[in-house]
Amino acid sequence: MAEPSLSVRKREGRLAPETVAALNADLAARFGNSFTASEAIRRQHGHTLTWLENQPPDAVVFAETRDDVVDLVTLCAKHDAPIIPFGVGSSLEGHVNAPHGGVSLDCSRMNAILAVNAEDLDCVVEPGVTRTQLNAFLHDSGLFFPIDPGADATLGGMASTRASGTNAVRYGTMKELVLSLGVVTADGTFLRTGTRAKKSSAGYDLTHLFVGAEGTLGVIVEVTLKLAGLPEAVSAATCSFPDVHSACSTTIETIQSGLPSARIERLDTLSVRAFNIYAHLGLPETPMLLVEFHGTESGVAEQAQRFGEIVAENGGGNFIWATKPEERTKLWKARHEGFFAQMALRPGARPFATDTCVPISRLADCVEETLADIAASGLVAPIVGHVGDGNFHVSPLVDMTNPKEIEAAEAFASRLAHRAIAMGGTCTGEHGVGQKKIPYMEDEHGTAAVDLMRRIKAAFDPQNLFNPGKVFAV
Amino acid sequence: MAEPSLSVRKREGRLAPETVAALNADLAARFGNSFTASEAIRRQHGHTLTWLENQPPDAVVFAETRDDVVDLVTLCAKHDAPIIPFGVGSSLEGHVNAPHGGVSLDCSRMNAILAVNAEDLDCVVEPGVTRTQLNAFLHDSGLFFPIDPGADATLGGMASTRASGTNAVRYGTMKELVLSLGVVTADGTFLRTGTRAKKSSAGYDLTHLFVGAEGTLGVIVEVTLKLAGLPEAVSAATCSFPDVHSACSTTIETIQSGLPSARIERLDTLSVRAFNIYAHLGLPETPMLLVEFHGTESGVAEQAQRFGEIVAENGGGNFIWATKPEERTKLWKARHEGFFAQMALRPGARPFATDTCVPISRLADCVEETLADIAASGLVAPIVGHVGDGNFHVSPLVDMTNPKEIEAAEAFASRLAHRAIAMGGTCTGEHGVGQKKIPYMEDEHGTAAVDLMRRIKAAFDPQNLFNPGKVFAV
Repeated sequence: MAEPSLSVRKREGRLAPETVAALNADLAARFGNSFTASEAIRRQHGHTLTWLENQPPDAVVFAETRDDVVDLVTLCAKHDAPIIPFGVGSSLEGHVNAPHGGVSLDCSRMNAILAVNAEDLDCVVEPGVTRTQLNAFLHDSGLFFPIDPGADATLGGMASTRASGTNAVRYGTMKELVLSLGVVTADGTFLRTGTRAKKSSAGYDLTHLFVGAEGTLGVIVEVTLKLAGLPEAVSAATCSFPDVHSACSTTIETIQSGLPSARIERLDTLSVRAFNIYAHLGLPETPMLLVEFHGTESGVAEQAQRFGEIVAENGGGNFIWATKPEERTKLWKARHEGFFAQMALRPGARPFATDTCVPISRLADCVEETLADIAASGLVAPIVGHVGDGNFHVSPLVDMTNPKEIEAAEAFASRLAHRAIAMGGTCTGEHGVGQKKIPYMEDEHGTAAVDLMRRIKAAFDPQNLFNPGKVFAV
Repeated sequence: MAEPSLSVRKREGRLAPETVAALNADLAARFGNSFTASEAIRRQHGHTLTWLENQPPDAVVFAETRDDVVDLVTLCAKHDAPIIPFGVGSSLEGHVNAPHGGVSLDCSRMNAILAVNAEDLDCVVEPGVTRTQLNAFLHDSGLFFPIDPGADATLGGMASTRASGTNAVRYGTMKELVLSLGVVTADGTFLRTGTRAKKSSAGYDLTHLFVGAEGTLGVIVEVTLKLAGLPEAVSAATCSFPDVHSACSTTIETIQSGLPSARIERLDTLSVRAFNIYAHLGLPETPMLLVEFHGTESGVAEQAQRFGEIVAENGGGNFIWATKPEERTKLWKARHEGFFAQMALRPGARPFATDTCVPISRLADCVEETLADIAASGLVAPIVGHVGDGNFHVSPLVDMTNPKEIEAAEAFASRLAHRAIAMGGTCTGEHGVGQKKIPYMEDEHGTAAVDLMRRIKAAFDPQNLFNPGKVFAV
């Protein structure tokens, strides 16, 4: 039997000027003032937080309804033009760049909170709702949405990149907390990937296929999320360690002992210095863990005591407890703005984003080898890590006017990714593949697994309309 | 652009006798004594625990290695013969039936535990390892694998049906606990769907695509599972309620209050009677909850106290605490053998399997409407439920020699599935679609979502080799 042709259609270069003109005429007619081809706005929509070159789309459409998305997909299919979903542009991996041109679909106006089902601990939101908007809305409900990447990202964007953050140790990532999605597919059809039931065995898991697909399989227009109950008591602390190894060992032992910490973050000395400069925290400049415990009053006290014992056994100490909410807020705000804090270490330089994640048993090895690599390559590269998950970010601060430095940072990032993969880990724990992690996909997954991914892409999006040039380079 | 043809190839009837003869000759040559075409063994491999008609395969191969699976897939592709993966045959939905003939691939001899990575709280097993075998192996490690469907199923089968059980409230289902899979695809290639990193954003989520695919996309030959630390303290209890509503309300309030119960199971009066007959438990015959708390000594005591308050507010009481391990074992053993216990209510009758799951806010409504339906239809139908998840099983006990009773039970099961779907739930919370839930797929997911599932099937398995006639009827 002949096998259907399932290679992803390759796009070459950008759209022809006459195609752009015809497309934009149709978009202007349908979307009026919600359409723009202004260069400033196009460039803003190709903008990312990283060092990557800006590749602006040919047009931007601000969608307000599901029907807007359906019509945009239909028009783009007619003109064979790419569609790049856009939330707030906080991606670190070039997800919103438009290497083949096309239309940036700005979802920021689709920001309604459609339902909060408090009894079921879930909610339904439009994709442009941000995590802080949702939590402000939930403020008096006794519930919260726990996933907290550094940026105030949109929930559609977070679903698309399988984002996580500091709370993932206890509450999981977008993989665990997206219950169902509403998506518009390449033929302009709206569908839901699942129900609000907490579990289901009814057929293939379409929800998890769209979570982390980075907008390459369809446009997310509705997100159903699990929520968590606000903990009765919260306790946060920093503690200091003589070296990296003792901080890593403490993390490993904490996870293994089943201590239900909500967050365990690790800062190296350089990062602590950055936070001190940026947020005037006055922390002792040594390797450090930031931890937080959630539970009942007595449960939190018990967790904190046990954690203190593990820290002491590993030679750490110097606890500073942040018991008041405002102290905790200051601490975590600094952590969330780590990206900007790091920039304070070397004004004018850009941080390169890396995002490796390894099995926790290999964390100390991976961090120590990486520190040696940083020292050997002469880079200024602070490390922060969601170490409770084995995930850490090294951010070489690069003078973008110095080609040799760029080359050295790129080579370092490549060695780091391959090191993590060789240790049974991944090149990206939470940022996504985007453009810059594409070279590691076959090394991490093997050719056969990437081939299955390509088959899914070809089956869902035969024209290669959705976010071409990401995840795999086509 | 022409879209690739992506409809699933339809199989008509069983294999021709000459095809079976040629296939079996090749299988005998390759697999020797690990191949059989004996009628008894073929029938045993079409056997299921349900009322479904037995549809035996044309042959059975007992695979011992990954290479055996690769060679079997290659031979079956050559003869265009279906392959039906088989664990222990405890499916309740006809997953192991062979409506189009072909080869039952018995994985029970692939039962090695390949690695236990205690530091990472994970393990790697072959698909024929059963959940009790794994837990016996882990006995002295301080770890356990928490998912516990009623039967002692294989972990490959549990992954394939996205199984869960009584512990899912706290520990999740196979969806949450499978970290990665090794699979053999339709072209005989082995691949891994992910790494051992706790989180990853590197491309499409192939792991979750194979979890719950019921053997229709490939053969699972390796399963990497998350493990949990054995709780320091465990406390279990039964408590009684005046009516269904108060038991459901107690469950809802417990979940909403964030009380981290490990298990909350509900038995109706008829089920309690069944357990008393079957296991001599001497429980009071009223609606009942079985609960279990895991944690530290003080944490468990605190949880138990809070739960007691919620029960009392809802008019329940009569707690019987099972504090000794052997008492707990007796209680949960009875619960796990509920399927057999129910048969004791009406000797000679077969229980029909239903498996609806609804958002917990609709649980009381769904159960009450269902009880009225049972009463109106004159069926003997006990109800047990993993109510902490909104999942419950009604098991009409049917005299299989009485066509009218079969018809009434089928009609009841259909009404129940549609009722759950109309309440935002699913026709199957943990058993899988198999053969008997196929009619509900489009109602639950919509035509467009089922079409995407079919596209995946066509893209991965163009010949329709893997378990045809399941999930969707082709």
